[in-house]
Amino acid sequence: MFPGEGLVLKPEEMAVYGADSSRRSAMPWAVVRPRTEEQIVELLKWAEAEKMPLVPRLRGTGMSGGAVPAFGGIVVSTLWLNRVIDINADDFCAEVEPGVITSEFQALTQKQKLFYPPDPASLKISTLGGNVSTCAGGMRAVKYGVTRDYVLGVRAVLPGGRICDAGGRAHKNVVGLDLTRLFVGSCGTLGIFTKLILKLLPLPESSATVLAAFPSLHNALEGARGVFRAGILPTAMEFMDHTACQGIGQIKDVPWPRESTQAVLLLKVDGSASALAYELDRLERALSQANPSCLLKGLGPKEEEPLWEIRRLVSPASFQLGPDKLGEDVAVPRGRTVEAVEGFQAIGKENGVHVACYGHLGDGNTHVNIIYDAKDEDQRARAKACKEAVFRLTLSLGGTISGEHGTGITKGPYVSWQLSETERELMAGIKNVFDPSGILNPGKGWV
Amino acid sequence: MFPGEGLVLKPEEMAVYGADSSRRSAMPWAVVRPRTEEQIVELLKWAEAEKMPLVPRLRGTGMSGGAVPAFGGIVVSTLWLNRVIDINADDFCAEVEPGVITSEFQALTQKQKLFYPPDPASLKISTLGGNVSTCAGGMRAVKYGVTRDYVLGVRAVLPGGRICDAGGRAHKNVVGLDLTRLFVGSCGTLGIFTKLILKLLPLPESSATVLAAFPSLHNALEGARGVFRAGILPTAMEFMDHTACQGIGQIKDVPWPRESTQAVLLLKVDGSASALAYELDRLERALSQANPSCLLKGLGPKEEEPLWEIRRLVSPASFQLGPDKLGEDVAVPRGRTVEAVEGFQAIGKENGVHVACYGHLGDGNTHVNIIYDAKDEDQRARAKACKEAVFRLTLSLGGTISGEHGTGITKGPYVSWQLSETERELMAGIKNVFDPSGILNPGKGWV
Repeated sequence: MFPGEGLVLKPEEMAVYGADSSRRSAMPWAVVRPRTEEQIVELLKWAEAEKMPLVPRLRGTGMSGGAVPAFGGIVVSTLWLNRVIDINADDFCAEVEPGVITSEFQALTQKQKLFYPPDPASLKISTLGGNVSTCAGGMRAVKYGVTRDYVLGVRAVLPGGRICDAGGRAHKNVVGLDLTRLFVGSCGTLGIFTKLILKLLPLPESSATVLAAFPSLHNALEGARGVFRAGILPTAMEFMDHTACQGIGQIKDVPWPRESTQAVLLLKVDGSASALAYELDRLERALSQANPSCLLKGLGPKEEEPLWEIRRLVSPASFQLGPDKLGEDVAVPRGRTVEAVEGFQAIGKENGVHVACYGHLGDGNTHVNIIYDAKDEDQRARAKACKEAVFRLTLSLGGTISGEHGTGITKGPYVSWQLSETERELMAGIKNVFDPSGILNPGKGWV
Repeated sequence: MFPGEGLVLKPEEMAVYGADSSRRSAMPWAVVRPRTEEQIVELLKWAEAEKMPLVPRLRGTGMSGGAVPAFGGIVVSTLWLNRVIDINADDFCAEVEPGVITSEFQALTQKQKLFYPPDPASLKISTLGGNVSTCAGGMRAVKYGVTRDYVLGVRAVLPGGRICDAGGRAHKNVVGLDLTRLFVGSCGTLGIFTKLILKLLPLPESSATVLAAFPSLHNALEGARGVFRAGILPTAMEFMDHTACQGIGQIKDVPWPRESTQAVLLLKVDGSASALAYELDRLERALSQANPSCLLKGLGPKEEEPLWEIRRLVSPASFQLGPDKLGEDVAVPRGRTVEAVEGFQAIGKENGVHVACYGHLGDGNTHVNIIYDAKDEDQRARAKACKEAVFRLTLSLGGTISGEHGTGITKGPYVSWQLSETERELMAGIKNVFDPSGILNPGKGWV
């Protein structure tokens, strides 16, 4: 079924297929690399007959172990299904195979003045298939939504080799239950994708960015409120807390006053070039009412770049504070962000670990980096206690334990904290409809 | 369980609960009108035990008979569950009961400078619960998407009285399978809604409108292309074909040259007031390249209103051409609209009935009004043949037989033209997980 390099059996070659960005890993029983949908159909016929677990995988940039064969099975890499079948500027629609790299796809769309908004941080190496499997988010979700909002259709092979063609190229479609969005974020538990139909937008002419530093989290949130109240829907609205700012300050000159800065906001707007100068003024006025200690503007990609470079340093800079981190991605109702971040900081103090909060304020989606030293058993225990307290606070604020990364294996034990037995039973029932033998990515998700 | 007016049994009072905007009707076995979730829980416990079919219903503005008890059962009107529980300008989120009227909710959000974009034509009388049941669309879908894109959570009572709380107030949430969107558009077949959590946006400051008339459908589509190519994502992009324009011309003075006009485009943009004057110029430039014979602009609601009044006349004006109509809502990939509309017009000619096409060009979502005289048996047969030919052409262009209205009963016989056996089996399996006895809105949808 898988001639030549299509089958990998040597442990040293397989190891890389057993890990992902969660830094968890497990050795696959075998790895197969189909080149065609026909091979996947054959594989799923055989696997269903043999009750053989399969773990679908692409670039392994997932943060929660969704692609790790932690409960055994054959890893199925669909990276070789990587054709861009069609990008159509009249239909505002693309058809791609799952292995296409997100940023390469975006570059192709831009050539036709088209725009695929989802922008997970991993987009330079992650794939569209992986993004759809996890319903990847990103910074532009405030204005443009997440991956879910750009999936018009999914073609998937199901256990037994049946093919499901959900959705299609029409932008509106309400015939039958919404199988398309059910596949989005299902983490390879319902079928193996062989084709995706994606929605595109016209490419905005340009963009502009504002960075504002504030003497308190409250001021920063007041600034964010002012922006929304002015009727501005920013493309991105990122924030960094005191700890995140400090980390950056240790590896780079920063434009804000180090002592007095408790929070930094970074906002992007996009649209037509002439309108943007005006939008930038409105942004500045809205933010100024919350008394920022520093406000920098950039009009167009060249001026914006240095401001966004600062944001990208948050994650590497956190290692200035400790050698290891737990990177959580909780989300709370947008207005509860101050309570959440203050609470997360207090939890860090109580447990004696650094907690850096940053991320997508516009979505209430906070990345909580718990920084510790994994070699120290006591610190490991405190980091875990801290993570669990973060989840409890998040849920008490009406939030979710995962805004972007999915539950995979790292959050598996906590899913029942959020979802009731009824919801989990419904999900298990739906899973059973697609995969009655439970061979697709067993043990992941919501069980 | 339902004291006083909560139970309706007199045929003359029940009749209205058996009809909807599809103009189909059937007499309910009984009508119940719960005031509380507890009553719905009791009802669903009893109905599950008795295997009693239930047909959930709100305002009955659906166009495809989804709320008609065509296969028997008790109609459950949740119109009395009509509280707006919360509209929160910090969370950009609202919690409502299903019976809240869409336009009344929108007026409340606007008072807080918030914006709920879905705008089905029926919004002055339709309910949010009905909109979610059908995944209602509308004119603003080009820029803002459909109802699905604004549902963050759904609370529903399932057969047996179990309660499912899907989703929540966080704008991003990827824990478990996406039950929330599965409920959207499920036409009352999975559960009875008792609460909806809706996403809100900041209210755009103002809007502007352009009307442009063209000597051919091709010119109109070229104009639409030019708009998108300029990087403009219009709020709405409506079109009306020659027949629709003629119908309007019979009841109103029209601004375009009657003889030479084959298509009219109507576009809206929104944003900040100052940026809009500039956006309007860009729109005009983009459209002018496609040689419109007439171009009118309106900046702000007062100037825009007369232009949109014309659009609202399409449906009443169609009755100038005949006493009865079949109103279909097919959608094709956006770039296939000219082929589709020319094809629909040709199908009308072949079958000797008037066909007026208009609607949401930006979504490829065309309303096809087949106008005929239902008293004439031959015309009835020709209208039906015409409708079926419209569906066949739509599907051959990669489209869907319903972009907005759902399948209900009127499109039930045609669902298998679009969905494969595999897709229908999956849907039936999912339905069975929620409703194993098949008591919720039996016979509707995708069977």
